[in-house]
Amino acid sequence: MKQKLFYAILIASFALSAIAHYSGMSGTLQFVLCCIAVIFAAGFMGKATESVAHYAGQRMGGFLNATFGNAAELIIAIFLVKDGLHDMVKASITGSIIGNMLLVLGLSVLFGGLKFKVQNFNVRLAGYNASMMLLAVVALFIPALFARSFTTHETNTFSVLVAVILIVAYALWLLFSMITHKDELSDTSTEEDAHHITWSKGKSIAFLLLATVMVAFISEWLVGTLEEFTHKFGLTELFVGAFLIAIIGNAAEHSAAIFLAMKNKIGAAVEIAIGSSLQIALFVAPVLVLISYFMGNTMDIVFTTYELAAIGVSAVIAKSISQDGSTNWFEGVLLLVVYVILGIAFFLV
Amino acid sequence: MKQKLFYAILIASFALSAIAHYSGMSGTLQFVLCCIAVIFAAGFMGKATESVAHYAGQRMGGFLNATFGNAAELIIAIFLVKDGLHDMVKASITGSIIGNMLLVLGLSVLFGGLKFKVQNFNVRLAGYNASMMLLAVVALFIPALFARSFTTHETNTFSVLVAVILIVAYALWLLFSMITHKDELSDTSTEEDAHHITWSKGKSIAFLLLATVMVAFISEWLVGTLEEFTHKFGLTELFVGAFLIAIIGNAAEHSAAIFLAMKNKIGAAVEIAIGSSLQIALFVAPVLVLISYFMGNTMDIVFTTYELAAIGVSAVIAKSISQDGSTNWFEGVLLLVVYVILGIAFFLV
Amino acid sequence: MKQKLFYAILIASFALSAIAHYSGMSGTLQFVLCCIAVIFAAGFMGKATESVAHYAGQRMGGFLNATFGNAAELIIAIFLVKDGLHDMVKASITGSIIGNMLLVLGLSVLFGGLKFKVQNFNVRLAGYNASMMLLAVVALFIPALFARSFTTHETNTFSVLVAVILIVAYALWLLFSMITHKDELSDTSTEEDAHHITWSKGKSIAFLLLATVMVAFISEWLVGTLEEFTHKFGLTELFVGAFLIAIIGNAAEHSAAIFLAMKNKIGAAVEIAIGSSLQIALFVAPVLVLISYFMGNTMDIVFTTYELAAIGVSAVIAKSISQDGSTNWFEGVLLLVVYVILGIAFFLV
Repeated sequence: MKQKLFYAILIASFALSAIAHYSGMSGTLQFVLCCIAVIFAAGFMGKATESVAHYAGQRMGGFLNATFGNAAELIIAIFLVKDGLHDMVKASITGSIIGNMLLVLGLSVLFGGLKFKVQNFNVRLAGYNASMMLLAVVALFIPALFARSFTTHETNTFSVLVAVILIVAYALWLLFSMITHKDELSDTSTEEDAHHITWSKGKSIAFLLLATVMVAFISEWLVGTLEEFTHKFGLTELFVGAFLIAIIGNAAEHSAAIFLAMKNKIGAAVEIAIGSSLQIALFVAPVLVLISYFMGNTMDIVFTTYELAAIGVSAVIAKSISQDGSTNWFEGVLLLVVYVILGIAFFLV
Repeated sequence: MKQKLFYAILIASFALSAIAHYSGMSGTLQFVLCCIAVIFAAGFMGKATESVAHYAGQRMGGFLNATFGNAAELIIAIFLVKDGLHDMVKASITGSIIGNMLLVLGLSVLFGGLKFKVQNFNVRLAGYNASMMLLAVVALFIPALFARSFTTHETNTFSVLVAVILIVAYALWLLFSMITHKDELSDTSTEEDAHHITWSKGKSIAFLLLATVMVAFISEWLVGTLEEFTHKFGLTELFVGAFLIAIIGNAAEHSAAIFLAMKNKIGAAVEIAIGSSLQIALFVAPVLVLISYFMGNTMDIVFTTYELAAIGVSAVIAKSISQDGSTNWFEGVLLLVVYVILGIAFFLV
Repeated sequence: MKQKLFYAILIASFALSAIAHYSGMSGTLQFVLCCIAVIFAAGFMGKATESVAHYAGQRMGGFLNATFGNAAELIIAIFLVKDGLHDMVKASITGSIIGNMLLVLGLSVLFGGLKFKVQNFNVRLAGYNASMMLLAVVALFIPALFARSFTTHETNTFSVLVAVILIVAYALWLLFSMITHKDELSDTSTEEDAHHITWSKGKSIAFLLLATVMVAFISEWLVGTLEEFTHKFGLTELFVGAFLIAIIGNAAEHSAAIFLAMKNKIGAAVEIAIGSSLQIALFVAPVLVLISYFMGNTMDIVFTTYELAAIGVSAVIAKSISQDGSTNWFEGVLLLVVYVILGIAFFLV
């Protein structure tokens, strides 16, 4: 029943977005329709990825989830890169990172904590996640710091080099966490979380392709409406990229993490939230730099002070809260408080 | 015997301060007399608060201690706010935070550590304290960072909003630590620490009112002498606020924490030091912003780089030292070394 | 056999460096020869120090190792100070700190981790090391921050005061870790690590003196070639000091730490890497400030933003990785990745 409603909204919102786009309706209406459509298409894409991953076997499947888990955001960002909206790309990367670490983690921990007094998860995994997140923060801080003394050419060279290093580091992290030290990092709460796969192998692949195409179309339409929408409501690119785009692109994961937390599977929720942040910082962001480089208009990896502060603050507070491998409702409140303060600041700036 | 001496000094120093103030004696003499008087009046106020809290029952009593524990400092700061000395208010907030985290904690850990090789306390409490302190640091950093791009009006709006959010977060922290997760955070070393209450209920309330009035009067006299004193000795507002005012306002707590540490109740000492820092950052500071707002001359929550660096450094080093739930003399030395280096820097600046 | 080869290269490289220097050969050739000679002379000095320490008894020996363990670097730096090359001194201090925390620790953890799945060491020691390293970072950040508002005279005064405080703190750290809390910090993996001492007491002392003289001579020759070499290859003082000089000065320790890690003595390797960083930051750097002060041309303790960022980033990532008292190959990769990114940034700047 729920499934049917999901597909009905998916198809309807996609169709309405298409109509609104090609008939040239008002930008705001287009923006709203595209937002709804992209949330559902991204959710569809996530299901299809999981299903394909299921048939690909455990190892290859894990790899697929780890690289295509944020594919919807990657596609939106590619269209932003294509239009040269580099600042909004970086704002949306920032927003995805802090959205996952503060909003998703915060809501999961809060709702989970309201139902269960204390929730526990594998503390070793939390430690590695924190170290990886630190690497990501460091890798984004260094270019911003040194760029002040660089020429544009040097900044671009440095950005491409850092991007390549980060992708290699991310590949080694997958090797480490999925192959050489897999057993150490497994979390009992996630293992039980069997997915109910209902599609055949062929259907899964077809649906993944279909979902990708849908996301790609809606992304292009959505990106086309951003400028009008941003100006009309007097918003900054920073706020739209870091809050609106980021929340839309991650909505499917958000709800999944919160439901898992409320089933006392906080380990799985933490893995989604932190794992997704890592993937954005160490894989999606560098891939976008390389894509922009091959498109001939290199997007540097230099984030603004505000963005870096937001990412740094989020990483530090998420680390402090997750490092003991145990969560409660108040820790969720803390994460959300920081998110709200950052949101107000980004809105006012 | 000791009690009698205490009250004798309290009354004498209050009387002499009053005489010095109303007869218009030299500013320096007034300053010194007021300092002595305020130390003893704040101590008296602390005792009366504890006594009232005792009769109010455990829960309400804990709440009273948590909100009025730094009432003396709050009163001094209100008179500073009234005189528009916003910079000195913020310096004294900074000084209270670093004074508690470095000087009080450092002396407690050092003296406790000279008597006992290793002292242990509830590590879970330490973890929460660290996360709360991080929130406080983050909440003070973000306005300073973003204020550069804000108009004065936006800065004030943002300050008031952040103040409200912090007070809500502090209220939820009290709910969490005193009600929903009380048992988890209790420290055996603090439980044994029964207070010897000798006053009746009526007397306690009367003494609390009396102490409040005394502190209020002395604070007004003290604040009136600050400008003359500061100029005469060529000191900066930053140094006077962050070191002199802060040490005077916290003297009573300082001695209490050190005595507890020397009785091997390091958990209680840590709770006083860190708890007091949290109260200043998450309750006193926002309340002062709101008071200034209602007075019609909003004090923003934007601290200087020096103040933020001092607070950030203190939080990081206090966290690093307290997070293993065990202390020794050398950790006390480390805290004091950082305090001394900061003190020299603030003096020279 | 290996020993003979070591001494053959030591004598040959020393002789060739001397010939190159006094016959005025090309700067680049002199630079290369001096580099080789100083690596072997520093290694010889390390062996002689250990041997003298062995005869001096456990306590005095530990003290000798703790203060003369970085003597070679200290000697090179003294010649740089003498020539007024303050920026290069600070760059080489930075380079030694990050080289030990990222390169040495990274290679040790990586190679150890390729041989053993997980390696463990005393977690308590790791905690103290992290707190000490934080103190070092804080002590280097505060002068840089406040120096902006200081006159040159105030900066120098502050630098000398901070230097004295750090040396006192380091002395207290030795008292703590070697005397009052020695048993708590001992690591079983290091205890087994008996040194095979083959020299008599007299010979050890004579060799230590000989090694010191050799290092001093080569250092003077090496420093003389730096300017020519730096200009010829278009390198910055920052890069030469932070990467070339630092790697050369620490080469002996680097190889020792890696060999220990591969023998599963990761605790000893961590102690060399982190202990050496601490010694540089809390003893060598302040001693150089005092030496420069007595030479009449005070070198302040104000590091550049780049240097501080590199030190801060290294401390944070080394702390995050070492704090659980357990290492694996991927953590080595993380440390090396940060080192490489910093290396590229320093090269480009």
